[in-house]
Amino acid sequence: MNYKVVFSILGKTMLIEAFLLVLPMLVGVIYQETNYLSFLIPIFALMLIGFPLSNIKSKDNALYAKEGFVIVALVWIVLSLFGCLPFVISGTIPNFVDAFFETVSGFTTTGATILNTMQIEGMEKGIMFWRMFTHWIGGMGILVFVLAVIPANTAGVMHVFRSESPGPSVGKLATKLRFTARILYGIYLVLTIIQIILLCISGLNFFDSMLMSFSTAGTGGFGVLGSSAVTYSSSTQIILAVFMFLFSLNFNIYYLLLIGNVRKAFAIEEIKAYTIMTIVSVVVIAVNIFTSLSNVYLTFGDAIKHSFFQVTSIASTTGLSSTDFDKWPALSKGILMLLTVVGACGGSTGGGLKVSRMLILCKSASADFKKQIHSRAVITPRLEGDPIDDATIRNTRTFLVFWILVVVASTLLLSLDPNIKANLFSNFSATLACIGNVGPGFDFVGPMCNYAGYSDFSTIILSLVMLIGRLEIFPMLILFIPRTWKKG
Amino acid sequence: MNYKVVFSILGKTMLIEAFLLVLPMLVGVIYQETNYLSFLIPIFALMLIGFPLSNIKSKDNALYAKEGFVIVALVWIVLSLFGCLPFVISGTIPNFVDAFFETVSGFTTTGATILNTMQIEGMEKGIMFWRMFTHWIGGMGILVFVLAVIPANTAGVMHVFRSESPGPSVGKLATKLRFTARILYGIYLVLTIIQIILLCISGLNFFDSMLMSFSTAGTGGFGVLGSSAVTYSSSTQIILAVFMFLFSLNFNIYYLLLIGNVRKAFAIEEIKAYTIMTIVSVVVIAVNIFTSLSNVYLTFGDAIKHSFFQVTSIASTTGLSSTDFDKWPALSKGILMLLTVVGACGGSTGGGLKVSRMLILCKSASADFKKQIHSRAVITPRLEGDPIDDATIRNTRTFLVFWILVVVASTLLLSLDPNIKANLFSNFSATLACIGNVGPGFDFVGPMCNYAGYSDFSTIILSLVMLIGRLEIFPMLILFIPRTWKKG
Repeated sequence: MNYKVVFSILGKTMLIEAFLLVLPMLVGVIYQETNYLSFLIPIFALMLIGFPLSNIKSKDNALYAKEGFVIVALVWIVLSLFGCLPFVISGTIPNFVDAFFETVSGFTTTGATILNTMQIEGMEKGIMFWRMFTHWIGGMGILVFVLAVIPANTAGVMHVFRSESPGPSVGKLATKLRFTARILYGIYLVLTIIQIILLCISGLNFFDSMLMSFSTAGTGGFGVLGSSAVTYSSSTQIILAVFMFLFSLNFNIYYLLLIGNVRKAFAIEEIKAYTIMTIVSVVVIAVNIFTSLSNVYLTFGDAIKHSFFQVTSIASTTGLSSTDFDKWPALSKGILMLLTVVGACGGSTGGGLKVSRMLILCKSASADFKKQIHSRAVITPRLEGDPIDDATIRNTRTFLVFWILVVVASTLLLSLDPNIKANLFSNFSATLACIGNVGPGFDFVGPMCNYAGYSDFSTIILSLVMLIGRLEIFPMLILFIPRTWKKG
Repeated sequence: MNYKVVFSILGKTMLIEAFLLVLPMLVGVIYQETNYLSFLIPIFALMLIGFPLSNIKSKDNALYAKEGFVIVALVWIVLSLFGCLPFVISGTIPNFVDAFFETVSGFTTTGATILNTMQIEGMEKGIMFWRMFTHWIGGMGILVFVLAVIPANTAGVMHVFRSESPGPSVGKLATKLRFTARILYGIYLVLTIIQIILLCISGLNFFDSMLMSFSTAGTGGFGVLGSSAVTYSSSTQIILAVFMFLFSLNFNIYYLLLIGNVRKAFAIEEIKAYTIMTIVSVVVIAVNIFTSLSNVYLTFGDAIKHSFFQVTSIASTTGLSSTDFDKWPALSKGILMLLTVVGACGGSTGGGLKVSRMLILCKSASADFKKQIHSRAVITPRLEGDPIDDATIRNTRTFLVFWILVVVASTLLLSLDPNIKANLFSNFSATLACIGNVGPGFDFVGPMCNYAGYSDFSTIILSLVMLIGRLEIFPMLILFIPRTWKKG
């Protein structure tokens, strides 16, 4: 482990967080709120520790896969530890464990909350801005941001980038890594601004439009209202749904459109599969809820709207709700649960196992099955036109096994919770919602409920699960291997 | 597809089934029951079709993996179709779909029933014998039986044997395949007889002792009472529990003990892992139910007894119950659900994913993870002392992917059921209980309930799922591939 490089990069990101914390403080000043200490204290703490760390110089500044994993995991944990201080200091969430949960939920773009309607709607503007802004920061990845703004002459930075980016493999959009990071943030910023404008037009005030756009852009799912998106007008709901879908697409499509390669942009296999999955889910759920809940969804148009909103919300792993889908029939709930697991496209701001990973799993399994029957047959699974190489297949399958182990372990650990309302199904659902970075699940953690019913122990477990989900397991896992910490 | 060989073997197994159906008829005669037509009709039907089929001669009688799969799948489906006739003709289960479900549940040793207490306890002795006897036949595998008693000069019979035997790989106990099959059936028979004697001593009458031994030996789970094993004495329950455990061990242990290789017998890694899993589960559940249900389980000894019974019952995939474990707290239910998925040892009569398969999945994932971090490291996962070869790892991982797809598909299809009590969790639980060949699940399909609440459509889905589970996916899957049916 090359500690010097790890600490140096950690220090730089801490300085960035200090800088980012200035924004909510300014919001507070604008709204004439007086709790600026809630932000000043963490800002000074971050600078105090971040400066000396970032100045650590190393003779050997090459990074390997191991360091990439460790940096990403440490950065996300440390930034969450400091990022929750405004909630604690301001008294919004006095319990540190709960505040940590809320912050991890923000950065990982999960959107699971321990706050009830009254607490959410009574929050000061500055604090609310920070809560929603964590989604926007976490969506694209904080280290990608670091790469975009800080000149780095460190070899192997690709490993950091790869560890933080969602999906089985990172397609380099441009040859230069820093250039890639800037393009990504550029697209992200422009789409966010467009959404803010559209939401304003639909009738939302500017502040709420901006905050809900942060929530959507990061595919997070925190809301400024306790009722999520239930009370919004249909036009606002549709704008939110469309942008949840747009932000859950592989960002390659926007880059290809940007450089004018329209044909290739619309030929991305992952996006095609994701779109088909979305359309099929919307139609099946609409028919299902319209036929079995005809007293709630009076017209088929209404059923389609809620189905579209909920499918894009869950598949994009945002987790906003336009209706109480926990009351939907078994088939619809089953599809939503499946979407929670599959999640969004790789290279998007969404979570879940990722569509491309599902394609790799299914295609390679199908090819292996055929090989088993016809031993002489040569079958090569392909993705995006290229053969899927063996290493990718191995890694994806390894990923699946660890994913299952984490889900099982988390479900069992949550079942230790003394709250008897946290039944097995709820705990399984909460785990899936957290590892997929979706937020709401079913029953005890349904869309009209929150995570406050869980004990501190369970909340810590779920915080770890959210981080494991967002960082795609391996970076978090490596922290628990003693060999990682050996010097050299 | 070499149709001639396939049909010839299918014909032979049909004749065997005709012979096996004579036994329950004799039981009926002994008990002076008059419904012998219920057995005579299927016996004649099987002979009428079985004789000409079994006499089909083929110039080329070599078998490949494909034929092995197809034979096994067809045999199990055809034998279930004829095996359910006694239930239909006798009027015990007039609905053919329900009778098919019950028979598949018997042969696959699932033990899921559509019958209620009154129907079970009012059944005629001959029919009841057949119902329980299907467990005993299915436990060791009907084609293994064919191999044991019929002289076969067909090349590649190994493929048939391999397709029917549970677990990731078949260890040949002896060099000759027929010899292996006879050893297996010998061990099976002797253990069953010992259990019958012990159950008689514990106070059960001979008929019930025999039938409950069939149920345990096959790790099936049908009971002669509607209340499963709840009303049995503690000594009877403990004998059942011990034998459920013994029959779920890899039969290699008995062969090794038989040839006097005690040290090697107790060194089998799969059995060690399975035993540890069992002990840990028993202790955790006992503590969990004793602390949270102290009004039900008055002494810790009582809690241990029920925990031991239920853990061996579910882990062995038998599915008998000594108490209503659906009322247990979330942690205990979670562990039982996990045991449902993991299941028993390969090379036993039990179902589930198999412990050896779990070991392969975990060890290979762990090795791959380490490789990912230390690219130069050479890490070879080992099982039973030998390196696990790449083909086995690939097949096991492919198996896992298909297993997940089947579970998801079945859960969603069951959710189409109009019975609203069949909620998402029940449907998931029913799927796991059926693909794992366990029988009872939770909630709607809990240990004190039955599968009668499901529609015919759902019952057919679950019958397929039981077969997919028992035959370990690929043999059933291959039936749906058009290329399978091409001649040549």
